[in-house]
Amino acid sequence: MGPGPINADPRVLRAMSAQLVGQYDPSMTAYMAETQELYRGVFRTRNDATLLVDGTSRAGIEAALVSLITPGDRVLVPVFGRFGHLLVEIAERCGAEVHTIETDWGTVFRPEQIEEAIVRVQPKLLAVVHGDTSTTVAQPLDELGAICRANGVLFYTDVTATIGGNEFEADEWGLDAVTGGLQKCLGGPSGSAPITLSAKAVEVISARKSIEAGIREPGETSRPDRIRSNYFDLAQILDYWGPRRLNHHTEATTMLYGSRECARILLEEGVDAAVARHRLHGTAMLEGLRALGLSIFGDQEHRMTNVVGVAIPDGVNGDAVRGELLSDYGIEIGTSFGPLHGKIWRVGTMGYNARKDAVLVTLASLEQVLRRAGAPVTGGAGAAAAYDVYDSESAV
Amino acid sequence: MGPGPINADPRVLRAMSAQLVGQYDPSMTAYMAETQELYRGVFRTRNDATLLVDGTSRAGIEAALVSLITPGDRVLVPVFGRFGHLLVEIAERCGAEVHTIETDWGTVFRPEQIEEAIVRVQPKLLAVVHGDTSTTVAQPLDELGAICRANGVLFYTDVTATIGGNEFEADEWGLDAVTGGLQKCLGGPSGSAPITLSAKAVEVISARKSIEAGIREPGETSRPDRIRSNYFDLAQILDYWGPRRLNHHTEATTMLYGSRECARILLEEGVDAAVARHRLHGTAMLEGLRALGLSIFGDQEHRMTNVVGVAIPDGVNGDAVRGELLSDYGIEIGTSFGPLHGKIWRVGTMGYNARKDAVLVTLASLEQVLRRAGAPVTGGAGAAAAYDVYDSESAV
Repeated sequence: MGPGPINADPRVLRAMSAQLVGQYDPSMTAYMAETQELYRGVFRTRNDATLLVDGTSRAGIEAALVSLITPGDRVLVPVFGRFGHLLVEIAERCGAEVHTIETDWGTVFRPEQIEEAIVRVQPKLLAVVHGDTSTTVAQPLDELGAICRANGVLFYTDVTATIGGNEFEADEWGLDAVTGGLQKCLGGPSGSAPITLSAKAVEVISARKSIEAGIREPGETSRPDRIRSNYFDLAQILDYWGPRRLNHHTEATTMLYGSRECARILLEEGVDAAVARHRLHGTAMLEGLRALGLSIFGDQEHRMTNVVGVAIPDGVNGDAVRGELLSDYGIEIGTSFGPLHGKIWRVGTMGYNARKDAVLVTLASLEQVLRRAGAPVTGGAGAAAAYDVYDSESAV
Repeated sequence: MGPGPINADPRVLRAMSAQLVGQYDPSMTAYMAETQELYRGVFRTRNDATLLVDGTSRAGIEAALVSLITPGDRVLVPVFGRFGHLLVEIAERCGAEVHTIETDWGTVFRPEQIEEAIVRVQPKLLAVVHGDTSTTVAQPLDELGAICRANGVLFYTDVTATIGGNEFEADEWGLDAVTGGLQKCLGGPSGSAPITLSAKAVEVISARKSIEAGIREPGETSRPDRIRSNYFDLAQILDYWGPRRLNHHTEATTMLYGSRECARILLEEGVDAAVARHRLHGTAMLEGLRALGLSIFGDQEHRMTNVVGVAIPDGVNGDAVRGELLSDYGIEIGTSFGPLHGKIWRVGTMGYNARKDAVLVTLASLEQVLRRAGAPVTGGAGAAAAYDVYDSESAV
């Protein structure tokens, strides 16, 4: 019950135990095409260029940035938590001239603040995290696409922490590049990064295409401004996933099976229903934690549905409580990074764990551990508050 | 029965269906430590820096090269097939000044040829593929470590295609960096890249360490010569796998389970026994194919145990034969790249598929398909030749 990774859906685990097939077996290429279509539904996009990067969600981020950024390009990153810093870090290593605006952890930016910075910096790319699990809040993105378009700026976001559990609309919000991961609301393991690219992003990337020696046709050559990474070269990866099926890496078959099953489960439930489920159980957890006497962290108007931050009570050893909860109750909750380290715990309700029993067991167990740690708790208040949320929902 | 990926061992598939645990759960960090120790046995090394890169084997190659190469460094790549070209490609994108020597596909270099080039080029790094599946031959590496050491050159190889099925000794042969993959003789899926680094390689990499903003301690800063990739920054990845457990990516738990099981299976059998098994079944396949009237490709003195190349007979449509074998018999064999495209098929016997029944079924089926394609075949000759190999083995 931490900020992710979390327990995988048993269906995903079963899918990943399926036998492998050859990488150009028609059934494998059919799985690939099917997975692309499924993720169009997940991201809410019609982008043809929708595929998987073989690596963790951080691999998806780096693939997007290294493929879009030519060294010297200006990139604007609004930083509101740890993963904003990560975008800065990766963009810098791609050779970008990175400009940042920052806000306190637990808050987000107003669109006008980002617009002002865009006008001032004139970046090629705006790179912003959607939900930053380190702070439990999500940056509203719905107005940023129009601002980017008006200023000729490419618009990229990472939705690893939010996708499938929070509202997200790639096309309607005007995104040019979106990266995700399986290990949060999608209920899968880390290790595969779904990505989607707009036609404009594909144009930018394809202009730098350089096919590697060894599989080049006569007349094809290398380019001086080629993408700095081979593994993350989305121009080549698009050719591998596209009709040309030009060999690049060997697709990670088991992770493909897992990614496919994550998307199938989500789309069977329906994206809207899954978001509502995350909101319900997230609210039940939040109200339960509050009723246990814990203060909620961060701007609640912009909170993520799937993770909540709570202040560690005075006099309580945060790591000792987490340790006891894990060793004696088998439940993991999260620590924090940077300015929040030692100050808040993060409790998740996402993917397969966005369930009533998972919420109630966590609240019941945490109550015991808090009491033993000397924190003032009212017996039963956590579960009661969660029940109130569930009862009011069923009354609607 | 292609050049890989191949069928996974059912034990590996079962291991990958296990439920996830949190990334800092003591059982997870214990699995990580256990996996490191297992791969020391696989690579035959005492290197402390033995771990997994989360991505396909190509990700392991790029992690090694981008972490070892500072832009402007001279790198020498002896190219004897497609994957030599890949090393060139990746090293160039890392900003290296790449020098190559080339030999015909199907042949390897004599140590003196490589030594001559090292003396002439004075590279920082020698990067050479061990077995290049594109050509079915393996470069002997056992004399190169001493040459590198005498010339102050770092020695890197990729053993994706050979490890677990061909003799390999990381420490005895003087390797500084070795990368692999699961999808060949280790009998797992693509998607995890075991890697090992000598103390000297770790020193080179750690000198460039730059901890990312967002998780830095006060006083830690970024470096101007930092590694060009964040995802493949082995200095940071070593901190994640090491006692500091500094957060980097979220380890791909399911792939870790798979990697661990691949190594457990190999070490239970014993590396030497596994190599002997690959040699036995590879020889049976080779003699069977030859007896079916097919000419064997490449320098047989340096052939890989686990893949054999055979000339497509005159007048036979290579892709049609492969297609019929796959659709009617459920058996995949491989096509070829570059100068060998359309000229040879590649037939593998590796990992879980290095078995007598897999060899005999493949020979029996291929005989039928070849006959229908109009190639001259002697009925039963393939299976008979394979039986002869098995009988002579059991007579020893």
